[in-house]
Parts: sequence; C-alpha cells; structure tokens
Amino acid sequence: MKLIVQKFGGSSVRDAARIQNVANIIADTYKAGNNVLVVLSAQGDTTDDLIAKAAEINPRASKREMDMLLSTGEQISIALCAMALEKMGLPVISLAAWQVGIYTTNTYSDARIRKINRERIQNELDKRKIVLVAGFQGINRRGDVTTLGRGGSDTSAVALAANFNADLCQIYTDVDGVYTTDPRIVPEAVKLPEITYDEMLELASQGAQVLHNRSVELAKKYHVNMEVVSSLERKSGTKVKEVVKMEKTTIAGVAKDTSVSQIALIGLQDNPGVAFRIFSDLSRAGINVDTIIQSIGREETKDISFTLSSKDVETALETLEKAKDTLDYDHIDVDNDVGKVSIVGAGIMTTPGVAAKMFEALYDANINIKRINTSEIRVSVIIDASEVDRAVKAVHAKFFGEE
Amino acid sequence: MKLIVQKFGGSSVRDAARIQNVANIIADTYKAGNNVLVVLSAQGDTTDDLIAKAAEINPRASKREMDMLLSTGEQISIALCAMALEKMGLPVISLAAWQVGIYTTNTYSDARIRKINRERIQNELDKRKIVLVAGFQGINRRGDVTTLGRGGSDTSAVALAANFNADLCQIYTDVDGVYTTDPRIVPEAVKLPEITYDEMLELASQGAQVLHNRSVELAKKYHVNMEVVSSLERKSGTKVKEVVKMEKTTIAGVAKDTSVSQIALIGLQDNPGVAFRIFSDLSRAGINVDTIIQSIGREETKDISFTLSSKDVETALETLEKAKDTLDYDHIDVDNDVGKVSIVGAGIMTTPGVAAKMFEALYDANINIKRINTSEIRVSVIIDASEVDRAVKAVHAKFFGEE
Repeated sequence: MKLIVQKFGGSSVRDAARIQNVANIIADTYKAGNNVLVVLSAQGDTTDDLIAKAAEINPRASKREMDMLLSTGEQISIALCAMALEKMGLPVISLAAWQVGIYTTNTYSDARIRKINRERIQNELDKRKIVLVAGFQGINRRGDVTTLGRGGSDTSAVALAANFNADLCQIYTDVDGVYTTDPRIVPEAVKLPEITYDEMLELASQGAQVLHNRSVELAKKYHVNMEVVSSLERKSGTKVKEVVKMEKTTIAGVAKDTSVSQIALIGLQDNPGVAFRIFSDLSRAGINVDTIIQSIGREETKDISFTLSSKDVETALETLEKAKDTLDYDHIDVDNDVGKVSIVGAGIMTTPGVAAKMFEALYDANINIKRINTSEIRVSVIIDASEVDRAVKAVHAKFFGEE
Repeated sequence: MKLIVQKFGGSSVRDAARIQNVANIIADTYKAGNNVLVVLSAQGDTTDDLIAKAAEINPRASKREMDMLLSTGEQISIALCAMALEKMGLPVISLAAWQVGIYTTNTYSDARIRKINRERIQNELDKRKIVLVAGFQGINRRGDVTTLGRGGSDTSAVALAANFNADLCQIYTDVDGVYTTDPRIVPEAVKLPEITYDEMLELASQGAQVLHNRSVELAKKYHVNMEVVSSLERKSGTKVKEVVKMEKTTIAGVAKDTSVSQIALIGLQDNPGVAFRIFSDLSRAGINVDTIIQSIGREETKDISFTLSSKDVETALETLEKAKDTLDYDHIDVDNDVGKVSIVGAGIMTTPGVAAKMFEALYDANINIKRINTSEIRVSVIIDASEVDRAVKAVHAKFFGEE
C-alpha cells in the first residue's frame, strides 16, 4: 500500500466549500487504495486575524505567546476537515503537532524540526485511518508550542513524507504547477511537467511563490518525491525530483523579484578587512546580501554596493549606521527602484551561450543591465524596477518562443 | 505566600479592552504579593462561531473532533491575556490543558477531570510567574483533547484550586455576586455576602445562572473557598463556603426556572413496576426527572405525570414512545406552560413555618400551586409559566420585605 502525503494551504481550506473540495481530493486518494497523511494550513485569513488581535493588545508580544496563539489556526482546519471526511463516512483523525510528537528547536516563530515520533501516526495509519496533521507547528523540549516560520506547512508536509518514507508528497495550491514564468505577466508561460530540486530552489529564492525554499531543501536532502498540484482543478501538476529529462529547452523558467533594493556605501577608507566587516555585521543581523560590487571611488576611497531584499533595508541601515565609526564611510545611498530577473535551469553552466542568449534578449529590448549574479544553475540580472515585467517577457520569448 | 485562583468567563475577555481589564485585576492580585493561577474561557462568541463553522460542514461531527475544534477558543484567550500581562512587564506563561497535564475521562464533550499534574504549574509558580491555564479542556488517556461540558471553566478553576490547595478561588463574572433573587425581576433583591455550598447548589440547579453545579459540588468536596465577584466593578462579591452565619433571614434566595415542562402519561395499566420502568428508561436516556405525581385515573388505570427540563422533552417523548408496548399507556400530554419557583436556605427544614410562609405569599398573590417538591434545604413549587415572575416578587417580598 502506498503512502501519499498531501498538503493544502490556507486558500484551499478558506471556507466550508473549499474544505469539502479538499475532503473530496483526500477521499479519492484514500479510496484508490492509498494511505493518506494530510497536512493543513490555517484557513484563509485566520492567521492574519489572530495577528491583528495580538497587535491590538500588545504589538511586542513574546514569540512564545504568539506561537501559542497562531497554532490554533491549523488546529481549527484539521478539526473541520476531519468533520467533512466523517460526513463522507470515512475513518479519519486529526492530530495537533504535540499529539504527533513533532519536536523542534526552541526558537519560537521560526523553529526547525528536529524529530518526528512515528508511533501515533503509524498506529492510526495501520487502522486505515486518514490522518490530518496541523501544519506549521511543533513543540520544543520544554513542551511549549513552536511555529515553523515562513513556508512552515510545506516543511511539515515534506518532513512527514521523509519520516514515513512516503511515496509522494503533494503540495496543493491555487496554481496548478510550476510555470516557465509568471503566467500573469507572460500568457505564453508553459507549465513544467517536472523540475529538479535545485532548479525549484533557485526559482523559489528568485521570487517564484509556489514553494518555499525550506521545504524544497528538505525534499532534496531526503529524496522526497514532491508534486505541486492544483486543489481546484483535477489535472497533473509539476513533479519536483532529483533528475528530470529536459529536452526542448535548457532552462526551467524565468523568475522575477521586485522587492529588491540596492545599498551603496560611498567613500569608504581603504582599510583591509572592511568588506568582511560589513558583510559579517549584516549576516549577524540576519540579512542575506545578494550581489556585491566594489569599486574605486575618489581620493583613495572605495565604494561598496550590494543588493538585498527590500524588507531588510531598514535593519541593514541600522546595522551600518551603528558601525559607522569602525567602517569609516562617507555616506550611504539607498535605491529601492531596482528589480531582479533570473533564468534558472540545470543545464545553464554546462550549455555554452545560455547566459549570452539572456543578455541578447535584454539588449534587443533595450534594457540596461546594472549587475549580474550567477550560480551553478542560475543567471540573474539587476535592472530598473520599471523594466522588470518587460524583461521577463523578452527573456521568456527568447527561450520559449512568442506563442 | 498565598495562592489565588481566578477564573474569568467569556464575556470578561470578549475583546481587547476587556482582556486589558482582566490583566489589571490579575496584576493587582499578583503585585499584592500573591501567586496567581488564572483560568480563562473562550472569548465572547468564539465557541458559538466555531460551532457554526462545524455545523456548516457536518452537523453530526464526532465529539472528538468537536473538542479538538472548540479547545482552540480557550487557547486563544490565554495567549492574548498573556500578551496583555507581558505588556505590563509581568512574568507570565500560558498553558493549554495538555501542557499542564489535566487528565480527564474519555467522554468527549462532557469529560470529568481525573487528575491534574502538579509539576509544570508548580515550576512556573515557583519562578513567580503568573500562570494562565485554558479552561474547559483536558486530555484523556489516549492523549486526545476533551472538553468538560457545561460549566467547564468553573470546574477547571475549582479543580486547580483544590489540587494546589489554593487559599481562594475567585469566579469573576459580569454580575457582582449571588443575589437573594434575580435583580432584573425584583429590584429589591439583595446581594448575599456569603452562602453555603449546599444553598449555592440548590440555587444553581433551580435556575440561578451564576455558578454551575459541578464546580460547586467540587468546591464542597474539597473545601475550596470560592468567591463570586464582578470583573467589571471592584467590590466585594459573594463567598461560597461550608458554613455561613445567617442572622436576619432563614432563606438565602428565591430562584426561578421557566424552562420546565410537564409530561403526563394518561391511562396506564396498573401493572406493578411500571413507574420504575418509566423512570429507569428516562434515566438511561440521560434525563433528570423532577417532581413526580401518580394519580388514579378512570377504569382501573392510573396517570403518572412528572416535570423535567424543557430541553429534554423531545428525548423523553422518543424514549416513552419507544416503550409504549411495555408501558401500556393510553396517550401522552405535554405541557410546556409551567415554571418553577424555589426558596433555598440552609435553615429551611429546621425552621418551622418557612414553607408555609412561601405558600402564604403565593396564596395572597392568588397564584395556584400545581405541584410541590422539597429537598433538605429547598422548597419548590410548580406554577403557571405566566405567573413565575409575579410569584418570585411575592415570595421575595414576604421574606426580604418590599424595599
């Protein structure tokens, strides 16, 4: 008997009708002779509503109590979905993380899963019950509730799939798979039947919203077969796995990210170790820096500029200003009007001319490239924010054709 | 150092302002040098909202999943209240029932507390933390969530007070104590400074809404000093204890209950054991029968009539109709237009003339008594539903005076 893990996000369970729809999907999988282990997120706006309630009482509430509060959202989802399956006459049980024994690190609001007990879930599966587990949550060594941070429910699902050697881990969302680029910008975007973990990781970190990095990293580490599939339409999605056969194209997709900013430190004294100091300070503040450029400034000084996620700009500026005395720079420039366009594909570095093809597309479209950043399977360019959508269209057309 | 248990109901924590008010009460108690253990109910309409959500999906959901769903309400309350206390700079921790170890029987939706672990709460109190515990909930031997049924949070509070030998268990409500009768009907009603467990029990079961029977029974069993006190006004409430000094009057109060119905089985064959059969059937169906009258009917048959809570009428009729062949009655009459007025007081049976004084008041008011029922500390009369309020006024005036 196969074990299928299915994860449904907040919009997939936002009301009674959607929960019924989810129950139908689960029921079909179960009736086809599979064991089914389901992970659910909190309904629609529940988490936001709870955060608003907390903010009204104490905007600086402890993360421990926030986790205690927010974890109720997923518990409501699993109980309601269990009721829908009961109505269909199916054997089902809902379990919160503390009932399963999903043990995490102590870090409230951003915990990492350490260990999952097998006993309770396996007992229920052995009785041929459908098991619904609350996503996004765990407990720490003290027996306190933790939550897993962004992408938490996806991570719960993949961790459970890894732990129980599931045959498949399906991530149901309101899109029907991973596309070569955002179909809202480029109607010609094509759904990928499959994609590698690494490509998915690069796409996710370059702005594709389908799957969160953490879950893909975990899937890659434990060789979990993932599938991104629509909860609204019954059609095949995108499989995420170790190796895929890619015939027509060398890239998997084009991603964009408009929440990018550029910070430049102007007029740095040319002391050894300055660059190291800057980026270790930022790293300690939890900020990931993207592209870095160091250039010669005037009068024996130099400039260092880098890009980062726009949400981190404020913290970065605080960090840099705190260190002004040691860093010894003249002033800071911030540019929020930049964006990033990336191509991702397992074949990029082994296929000559792929990057050049991207640059050519941008050149033909008369788009100026400010910076370039590459990884083994990705080429990213930083351009004016206003040109991001046009760049995505041009690059996508170059690789996948106009229609 | 004293330990005070404080319980706040749903209306006391219904929004951010009320939660702040509750936090202020807790903070004052804590700052006065006491250890404070708090039990909270779900906010205002939360439980009803969750029940409505469930009903939309599956009106016959299992009680196990209902408990899983409903227990989130109290968890939200304790987390939010903890945040309010954190904002005031006080050390606080919220604990769900599974974190405390509040073990109950297996009966979902109406479980009884079996055992409460001392360790976690005592550890937190020893650190001088304010401990907030989710009321109304527990876990059973399987590690599943249970809820305690009606009056559940009061019961949680008293059970914790008993378990930790608390010096006082304060039940905060939106009334400021126990009155000689309902002040909405009789403006002359007087707040009782104190009342015995037994009197409180009779008042509660005769329709006074202040405290639930179960919590009072538990308090009596474990000699817990209880106090009913207002969460909105800072003034003394009513103390509930073993023995009180009552000087002026022999009764503690006048209670009414308008959700009473009368069922009559007409034309029963006079077989031995019929009455036993009727009431054991009803008892098995979970129905408490109040006054019973057996009378001679026509042609060697007899009639048996009894009063019961109106909410049980439907179940009672089903039970009786199922047993029609064995019971062998002619037909059933149902009368929903009856109500009950009771006087309650520890002195009733030892003070001659108390019952007579009540009957005299009703006679003077020209109210016809249909039935009478007494216990050691209570006299109840069944009268027309339309005359209940007038009866309460007349009886209250007789015992406590007009003004």
